[in-house]
Amino acid sequence: MADRWQSTMDHAVAIARKAGEMVREALLADRKVETKSSSVDLVTQTDQKVEKMIIESVKEKFPGHRFIGEESVASGESCILSDLPTWIIDPIDGTTNFVHAFPFVAVSIGFSVNKQIEFGVVYSCLEDKMYTARRGRGAFCNGEPLQVSNQNDINQSIIATEFGSNRDPEAVDKIFSTLRKILCIPVHGVRGAGTAAINMCLVASGSVEAYYEIGIHVWDVAAGSLIVSEAGGVLMDVEGKDDTALLRSRFTCSQTGLSAAFVHRWRGGHDVSENRRCQLCDHRREGRQRDHPVQPTEGRCSTGEELETTCHS
Amino acid sequence: MADRWQSTMDHAVAIARKAGEMVREALLADRKVETKSSSVDLVTQTDQKVEKMIIESVKEKFPGHRFIGEESVASGESCILSDLPTWIIDPIDGTTNFVHAFPFVAVSIGFSVNKQIEFGVVYSCLEDKMYTARRGRGAFCNGEPLQVSNQNDINQSIIATEFGSNRDPEAVDKIFSTLRKILCIPVHGVRGAGTAAINMCLVASGSVEAYYEIGIHVWDVAAGSLIVSEAGGVLMDVEGKDDTALLRSRFTCSQTGLSAAFVHRWRGGHDVSENRRCQLCDHRREGRQRDHPVQPTEGRCSTGEELETTCHS
Repeated sequence: MADRWQSTMDHAVAIARKAGEMVREALLADRKVETKSSSVDLVTQTDQKVEKMIIESVKEKFPGHRFIGEESVASGESCILSDLPTWIIDPIDGTTNFVHAFPFVAVSIGFSVNKQIEFGVVYSCLEDKMYTARRGRGAFCNGEPLQVSNQNDINQSIIATEFGSNRDPEAVDKIFSTLRKILCIPVHGVRGAGTAAINMCLVASGSVEAYYEIGIHVWDVAAGSLIVSEAGGVLMDVEGKDDTALLRSRFTCSQTGLSAAFVHRWRGGHDVSENRRCQLCDHRREGRQRDHPVQPTEGRCSTGEELETTCHS
Repeated sequence: MADRWQSTMDHAVAIARKAGEMVREALLADRKVETKSSSVDLVTQTDQKVEKMIIESVKEKFPGHRFIGEESVASGESCILSDLPTWIIDPIDGTTNFVHAFPFVAVSIGFSVNKQIEFGVVYSCLEDKMYTARRGRGAFCNGEPLQVSNQNDINQSIIATEFGSNRDPEAVDKIFSTLRKILCIPVHGVRGAGTAAINMCLVASGSVEAYYEIGIHVWDVAAGSLIVSEAGGVLMDVEGKDDTALLRSRFTCSQTGLSAAFVHRWRGGHDVSENRRCQLCDHRREGRQRDHPVQPTEGRCSTGEELETTCHS
């Protein structure tokens, strides 16, 4: 059967590439920057120009389609995801990177119908890497199939995250407290590309095992979420619930078992393996505990079986 | 006049490229990993194989030359920098990245005579970017000249750093305390490529304004330090002193004024601008202070003039 959205996706790939060219050209020219919410959260003329180009191009070809775009929302348009075909656009994910010519800058285009992402396109334009995913048909980078990491030991993992743009001491302390907890699990390393879209593509590529971030927007993750899941990854919110709804904070993980372990640690508990002994502190059975604090929908900690201990140390 | 070390440098570029090919090939094969000081500090068979190839190739061509190599030192050889021509080698800078195929992995080769770096070669082999610098003749990436950022406002800067491989809570707390101070200056962002050599090349390219790290080794920075300085950057230790000596912890900055401001903040003081008012807290003149706690050798805070206040808040 013909794919109903194939030509729409082809158009998305073509305009993502065109948008990337605009970004690269702009990097050669002067970069006139105006501030948005803070000096950290940058928006450039290019950002607005690229979003306008994408929306105009889609409107001409698909007049009935709707849009959610970062720049349109920033300038007052509403952010409503209906059942109608909707293009969810971040014209430049990684504007801070863009301003500094740091090598990770992405054009992100997700396409949703009935609130479900049908395809996602992330073009990492300075690297010239085109990441694509069509629902049910896999994820690719420059045509090569993507597969998330098969590493299911969190101690052997690299975790991606960002510091965000809020520099209020309270917000920074919260971010650091979480980051410290993650780093000291311990994990192999923590990285951040400076763009949510590319962080998710790094999960899909298997270069990082997990990416988490709090307070991101639908245009940051619409395309990336499908690329991760089509590469075999899972998406979860910080309660460990399977996160299929858009428009809310989330984090992504590469692998079912790892996701469960990660959520478990996130919530303050240790990883309880099948041999019923905490892997970290060698804590043995102290009593049955049915009300385990983490109930992810998948993975080792979700079975509802009697778990050994939660080890909140 | 002919360059005495040109042919030596040509050989370094050729073997860096060959080493990079070995790294890329190894990424396609299984990566058998053994632990070094901790699970985070990885060393792979490839690491050792690449260093061996580089040293054997140099020994054959330049029998009198000496070596300092990360892997040789790790396996017990001494780390002595004499006046003799010495190749300072990190066969894979970014071994954690390598193990995960995270896109920043570098071969780093610095060449020192009379304890002065004559040339530096950093090959970012997954990006296929060859960074080179010859003392007094500029720095280049794939033949294109490099120039550090001209941004001299620290608030508009991206700072690169790393979390290191030590996961002892005390060490992590120290790193986080510094990082928090830097982030809340505020700066545009904090990034980390996962390799010192590439972080320094990002400074040289102008993508980040400064890179700092405590506890790095000579093989991490030998090549990068010349690439930064030949691109117009400065190197300083954390006391704000001009750091030309190898074999000690350091940080690098892109620009004279920025370096001074950065050291100033690092040491706990605020940035005192020419209008004699602290830019951060609007603190006005409280008295003369000749013994300013920071005495960088260059930049606004080093002139010895009467500074407004140190604002240790």
